[in-house]
Amino acid sequence: MSKMDVPYKIYLDESEIPSTWYNVRADMKNKPAPLIHPGTHKPLTFEEMRPIFCDELIKQELDNETRDVPIPEAIQNFYRMYRPSPLIHAEFLEKALDTPAKIFYKFEGSNTSGSHKLNSAIAQAYYAKEQGLKGVTTETGAGQWGTALSMASAFFGIDCKVFMVKVSYEQKPFRREVMRTYGASVTPSPSMDTEIGKKINEDNPGTTGSLGCAISEAVEVATKTEGYRYVLGSVLNQVVLHQSVIGMETMTACKKYDIKPDIVIGCAGGGSNLGGLISPFVGEKLRGEADYRIIAVEPASCPSLTRGKFAYDYADLGMVCPMAKMYTLGHGFIPSANHAGGLRYHGMSPVLSQLYHDGLMEAVSVEQTSVFEAATLFARTEGILPAPESGHAIRAAIDEALKCKESGEEKTIVFGLTGTGYFDMKAYEQFNDGTMTDRMPTDEELEKGFAGIPEIDL
Amino acid sequence: MSKMDVPYKIYLDESEIPSTWYNVRADMKNKPAPLIHPGTHKPLTFEEMRPIFCDELIKQELDNETRDVPIPEAIQNFYRMYRPSPLIHAEFLEKALDTPAKIFYKFEGSNTSGSHKLNSAIAQAYYAKEQGLKGVTTETGAGQWGTALSMASAFFGIDCKVFMVKVSYEQKPFRREVMRTYGASVTPSPSMDTEIGKKINEDNPGTTGSLGCAISEAVEVATKTEGYRYVLGSVLNQVVLHQSVIGMETMTACKKYDIKPDIVIGCAGGGSNLGGLISPFVGEKLRGEADYRIIAVEPASCPSLTRGKFAYDYADLGMVCPMAKMYTLGHGFIPSANHAGGLRYHGMSPVLSQLYHDGLMEAVSVEQTSVFEAATLFARTEGILPAPESGHAIRAAIDEALKCKESGEEKTIVFGLTGTGYFDMKAYEQFNDGTMTDRMPTDEELEKGFAGIPEIDL
Repeated sequence: MSKMDVPYKIYLDESEIPSTWYNVRADMKNKPAPLIHPGTHKPLTFEEMRPIFCDELIKQELDNETRDVPIPEAIQNFYRMYRPSPLIHAEFLEKALDTPAKIFYKFEGSNTSGSHKLNSAIAQAYYAKEQGLKGVTTETGAGQWGTALSMASAFFGIDCKVFMVKVSYEQKPFRREVMRTYGASVTPSPSMDTEIGKKINEDNPGTTGSLGCAISEAVEVATKTEGYRYVLGSVLNQVVLHQSVIGMETMTACKKYDIKPDIVIGCAGGGSNLGGLISPFVGEKLRGEADYRIIAVEPASCPSLTRGKFAYDYADLGMVCPMAKMYTLGHGFIPSANHAGGLRYHGMSPVLSQLYHDGLMEAVSVEQTSVFEAATLFARTEGILPAPESGHAIRAAIDEALKCKESGEEKTIVFGLTGTGYFDMKAYEQFNDGTMTDRMPTDEELEKGFAGIPEIDL
Repeated sequence: MSKMDVPYKIYLDESEIPSTWYNVRADMKNKPAPLIHPGTHKPLTFEEMRPIFCDELIKQELDNETRDVPIPEAIQNFYRMYRPSPLIHAEFLEKALDTPAKIFYKFEGSNTSGSHKLNSAIAQAYYAKEQGLKGVTTETGAGQWGTALSMASAFFGIDCKVFMVKVSYEQKPFRREVMRTYGASVTPSPSMDTEIGKKINEDNPGTTGSLGCAISEAVEVATKTEGYRYVLGSVLNQVVLHQSVIGMETMTACKKYDIKPDIVIGCAGGGSNLGGLISPFVGEKLRGEADYRIIAVEPASCPSLTRGKFAYDYADLGMVCPMAKMYTLGHGFIPSANHAGGLRYHGMSPVLSQLYHDGLMEAVSVEQTSVFEAATLFARTEGILPAPESGHAIRAAIDEALKCKESGEEKTIVFGLTGTGYFDMKAYEQFNDGTMTDRMPTDEELEKGFAGIPEIDL
């Protein structure tokens, strides 16, 4: 790689935005296990999913064969509003680390939703509109997905009802206002608008909610309201498919500038960003065309890959959603209260779980104080203030770069910078004040979570 | 202009970042009036300014002759971290307005400081470092300038002391934390750290501060602390010079894609963004090479150009700073309490004031509810959630585009989108809730402000 040829920021032309998504499942020998019905434990059919999900999205969910899925023109047009996203050569960070490694990051935060979530939100809103639906429902915790879906729904002129975990609704009023500015209705969850919300409020007076509860409310409203469907921003196969646009652009930029990644790194919560970033790289591995080390980075406080079990589990606390075979800490697992960032889902995308199980991907877990230390160094050298989630990938990238410093190796590291931290300053405040602490689950806590995983005999 | 040739987002190459700033004063027949000493009323000399400002910046402040000022390499390198900024064809907004006008906007919000302020902050931090200084002091109200200066100071490894208007410090804790994350010290103003702060606190128990008071504190610390100087993010000639990078990139992009602006629009508070955006366009007007309508947009609640007086006035409430000849509402003028956005400075850049006085620029004022209406439409169509300041330019651009719709004219409008509104959601909340109101100053209030303008006999 001739450094002189690579600009600091690589912006592809608009014509280089992919016109198809890449479906990594088509190249997987071991396909991800199908979603199953929480009652019958049988693989869910198209017809069974129709009351919950949009038709076209179900087709994408079930399709393990089509390798290149055309991106509709309207979605391509929207992508032009904020894509291609830049692949940035982190030369200022390299200098600060004094490492021979070459570090690049794909920055997905240059849009108002502030993260990569928009890549799938716009697709899901589009298919809802095409189906003639009135609106969509969803849940949001930290708020990135809800914001992205609000933007996407506003663009296509459909309604968007967001159930926001009550504690976030109260602590993140600005996130809520961004969604309202885009015309979404935002309801704190548990609410008194749904049967399940009423029940949870009655059973747990004063509860501040959970993601699992918000999911159940959103699903209830979608299935009970004419012309509505439920949409989800992570975990599902369709989401990994839409997010492949990240990896495809990254690969195009690498090939254009003769950058040869040795290591590809991404943070992993439900797997939406990581799945999208690595899809084409894993594809080359699966087809025997190239080899890469691929590293998933998760928080030590919610270590589904590094300490979880590979099993069928419920996707939500309410156990109303389809079940997925994935690395899971148990659907009742909740990270310790001191956990500041996102990446707090108990499970992991079935696609990524299968890849990890098959040895195509590594995983590491990192403590949050070391994450914010890395994020702060990154902000001060590269300018961008990262989301805590993205800080996990930064931490791992820095660790690999420091290993190169020791060994003298000139490895090329590419990582995904999923978004910006403007709405996460409360966590940065804790770090700045020195009051942030680390706390990984004890073995006993993990066992308690595992105990909730049902034994499924397929 | 062939629409097919213009991409939605125009990203210039890094090689097209200008290597010189353009000093519009060199082409002005009537130069802006010099800064004068608040005591003697005589033009300030280099030596008189040295205790307050950095040497090289004073030279830039006083230099009305050098047209092209070389940008030091270290600043050019930093610019590559977030520049060239995109010039975006607002085709989705055009469609929503159903206008034959072509609308383009230069987006300066794609960096962590969230605004154009970084263009000058990095220059000022660089010159402070070059002079061997330990650090810089400044004030910040809304927080954009303080954030930008914190980033820039972190990059060059100098200290940054920010006096933040107390009411902002308390109401915008996230802005404060961004600055702290970049290593700045942030002090609520008035503080007990300065003589003037103590005096103001004693005289006005419980005061929540003002920009004028924060300026005085920052200047006091700079002049009393070995190795420190004071820096300012707007109004000054040097700031307009640094911000010319906005206009130069805009002009390069226009010429490259054969876009011929009829109207150039920018919001105007102290004039940093507007001055930078229009500099090269005004230059062509001054040299008789081209003609453009140039429109400054200000809030109806702080209408320095449209309702102010062109006179020498104090730059700060404490009357310790140099005096400038400018359009002013009087240094004691404070916008009505219901004013939500920025753009609340009582005066205007001397460069812009002179251009306006000489008829080279128009000015309009707009009410804030109409600004947020425009900002919301913009967010929903173009995706980007604008800062309230930027919303003023959007309002005027939409109004011009709607005039084109009526007349059928296919005018080309270019406006400056200075930044993002992530830290301004409180104001959006007021608008979303329908509780935002408008209030322009009465004639009596203006007279009271004018009464504070001293009569200067030069």
